Amino acid sequence: MSSPHVLILGGGFGGLSAAKALRRRPVQVTLVDRHNYHLFQPLLYQVATAALSPGDIASPIRWIFRRSPNIRVLLAEAASIEADRRRVVLRDGADLAFDFLIVATGASHTYFGHDGWSAYAPGLKTLEDALDIRRRVLLAFERAERESDPVERQTLLTFVLVGGGPTGVELAGTLAEIARQTLRHEFRSIDPAQAKVVLVEAGPTILPAFPEALRHTARASLRRLRVDVREATAVTGIDGAGVMLGSQRLTAGTVLWTAGVAASPLVRSIGAPLDRAGRVLVAPDLSIPGHPEIFVVGDAAAFVDEAGHPLPGVAQVAMQQARHAARAILRRIDGRPSSRFVYRDKGSMAIVGRGAAIADLGWIRFSGFAAWLAWLFLHIVMLVGFRNRLVVLVQWAMAYVTLQRSVRLITNVERHEDRDERTG
Amino acid sequence: MSSPHVLILGGGFGGLSAAKALRRRPVQVTLVDRHNYHLFQPLLYQVATAALSPGDIASPIRWIFRRSPNIRVLLAEAASIEADRRRVVLRDGADLAFDFLIVATGASHTYFGHDGWSAYAPGLKTLEDALDIRRRVLLAFERAERESDPVERQTLLTFVLVGGGPTGVELAGTLAEIARQTLRHEFRSIDPAQAKVVLVEAGPTILPAFPEALRHTARASLRRLRVDVREATAVTGIDGAGVMLGSQRLTAGTVLWTAGVAASPLVRSIGAPLDRAGRVLVAPDLSIPGHPEIFVVGDAAAFVDEAGHPLPGVAQVAMQQARHAARAILRRIDGRPSSRFVYRDKGSMAIVGRGAAIADLGWIRFSGFAAWLAWLFLHIVMLVGFRNRLVVLVQWAMAYVTLQRSVRLITNVERHEDRDERTG
Repeated sequence: MSSPHVLILGGGFGGLSAAKALRRRPVQVTLVDRHNYHLFQPLLYQVATAALSPGDIASPIRWIFRRSPNIRVLLAEAASIEADRRRVVLRDGADLAFDFLIVATGASHTYFGHDGWSAYAPGLKTLEDALDIRRRVLLAFERAERESDPVERQTLLTFVLVGGGPTGVELAGTLAEIARQTLRHEFRSIDPAQAKVVLVEAGPTILPAFPEALRHTARASLRRLRVDVREATAVTGIDGAGVMLGSQRLTAGTVLWTAGVAASPLVRSIGAPLDRAGRVLVAPDLSIPGHPEIFVVGDAAAFVDEAGHPLPGVAQVAMQQARHAARAILRRIDGRPSSRFVYRDKGSMAIVGRGAAIADLGWIRFSGFAAWLAWLFLHIVMLVGFRNRLVVLVQWAMAYVTLQRSVRLITNVERHEDRDERTG
Repeated sequence: MSSPHVLILGGGFGGLSAAKALRRRPVQVTLVDRHNYHLFQPLLYQVATAALSPGDIASPIRWIFRRSPNIRVLLAEAASIEADRRRVVLRDGADLAFDFLIVATGASHTYFGHDGWSAYAPGLKTLEDALDIRRRVLLAFERAERESDPVERQTLLTFVLVGGGPTGVELAGTLAEIARQTLRHEFRSIDPAQAKVVLVEAGPTILPAFPEALRHTARASLRRLRVDVREATAVTGIDGAGVMLGSQRLTAGTVLWTAGVAASPLVRSIGAPLDRAGRVLVAPDLSIPGHPEIFVVGDAAAFVDEAGHPLPGVAQVAMQQARHAARAILRRIDGRPSSRFVYRDKGSMAIVGRGAAIADLGWIRFSGFAAWLAWLFLHIVMLVGFRNRLVVLVQWAMAYVTLQRSVRLITNVERHEDRDERTG
């Protein structure tokens, strides 16, 4: 009898952790991703802000599993999951049969029904998104340098971040640093330091997952960088001229969106009940109702812990859930029952700017330079692949010393403008 | 009286050298480029073959001149040169007046009248070209892994390089190394080492600029990497199925073009006589007939030295000519006559693979590991900007030790496929 076939959809933190847990185990594994690389999402904002190259935060999935003969990597996009037939249909029409399935397809951003906003306020989920944001930000300064009308110039130099979660805060702090420090001395008609960075959060506070004392520190750090933080302020419209905050217009040349995420639409095809964000309501062992051989993990799953709290959409949750699902599959093959998933919260961190971060590890809370160093260390250790780690370390060290950002390239402008024309 | 305005078109080796020679001199300089970065062209093939990131070989032009208050950098594309009116019209309709003009707009690839070939055999001149080639090469292996028909699979694993100059030789050697070394162990259905790499040169020999003894060494190095070198073989057709060599078809999934270059079409608008490759026939001082205030340098110029030989299209020529033009302008401002340009050939180098290169410095010729080290050293020293240099060094050192390539990302696939549909 050949070994059972485990199909894993998605090569993010979840899919990668599941495949690693199944290395050299008595299963055949196929890992499918629509990209040929694993993306280290927590550093994506550094690509968007020109500090790192795409290659620094991405590793070919194939390379990661080169020494795992039972793991096969396929570059393909899943189109639908046929739970009853135990098959996944690929976008190109081929299909893959499975004995066990782990769905780890993550999330994309959502505009809460305002899909038209996406053309004016791109989100940050993929490498392409990051390069698009990098292009928009750098082009804004270039266009301002050539603009003679002072009002239009200030519009070009106004950046609005919608969403006050960790990504919004990281982007706001970094954009302010770029304007005030990186670009100093480089322009002849404008003073980049005059740029306005506005961080808008609809909820009562930025960084809601953190305790108020740390949020207070984060607000102070942002204020030092002259970021205009507007909490309890809902965005009611976005167009080519800027954003509407209630009935007040905020004119801005660049608007970036970090406000909403929804599960990847693929999971709808499973036929299991979903929550409002489109995530699959999973059983305590992370399988779906009626299909103990199908597991959903990470951002694609809605899991409520024993205290009744939904788990956050972070890498830690995806990795722990993926390992749990992999173990559950190995137990099932051995004829043992699966167990309930229990999340072990190792804490959270957010970075506000150069040398400033906040950390809440549960047993200790700290901020400032120490938190920044801890953040740096943790992220370097977590980065997949030794080469990437070393290069990232060199780039960060140089950026810290020189205040520079080494990847300030505006690429793909023509292609992008083509696309703008087509999308309106 | 305000200082004379020197307009420089192009931020390549020529434009950059001209601007540097005019730093802190009694002139106002405007440097116009359609990209915001200077591209270190000699290493572009390393981006195309996934060894370096775009950011490693590109520096923002603005950053290079941040401490040169008399130099203004504009991100814009020149549409035409109106020599008599002393104006350059930009693509967006604005125009720039000048007292002196240095045209350093370089070259793009040409298909010798077969423009239809460009869709099937991309060239390598820009960062976008390099990312396109990287995508095609990596996708070929991914598609072969999913292909069940053995004939189709071998087609996907066949790579044809058209053009046996340094770039063609570098690409051929590197592609062979990727197939035989980098990708080893990573695929489950194909053996990447079965890939066929064919280097086709229409002229009697590859690397015509080098002495035959060094060419012999290069051919031997390519043979060791199992590159199929076909000299005196003209390509008579290119389509989606491969290339025609005379009446013989060579089926190939990937065809890359390094065979022909032509001056950028902008120079036609000057109204000066051109050679067959569209380059401006310049006077001995590099100015154009009837316009002593307009200079053309680098790949955009056709200059014949005292021995009657046309100068090659390499960085050294562009840099020396640009400095000569800048000095000629400063002399003219001082009321002194301009002098004849004399090229000082410092020699040429080509790299064939890991640890193998050839070098002809005039007074000495050598090859093998020593030449490769010399090549490495020279290119690291030449790279603009300290940060880039350090990162490139780290990546190279790691690549040499691990046989790996750190930037194996397939990006922009969707956008690219959109474009394919539109261009046919």
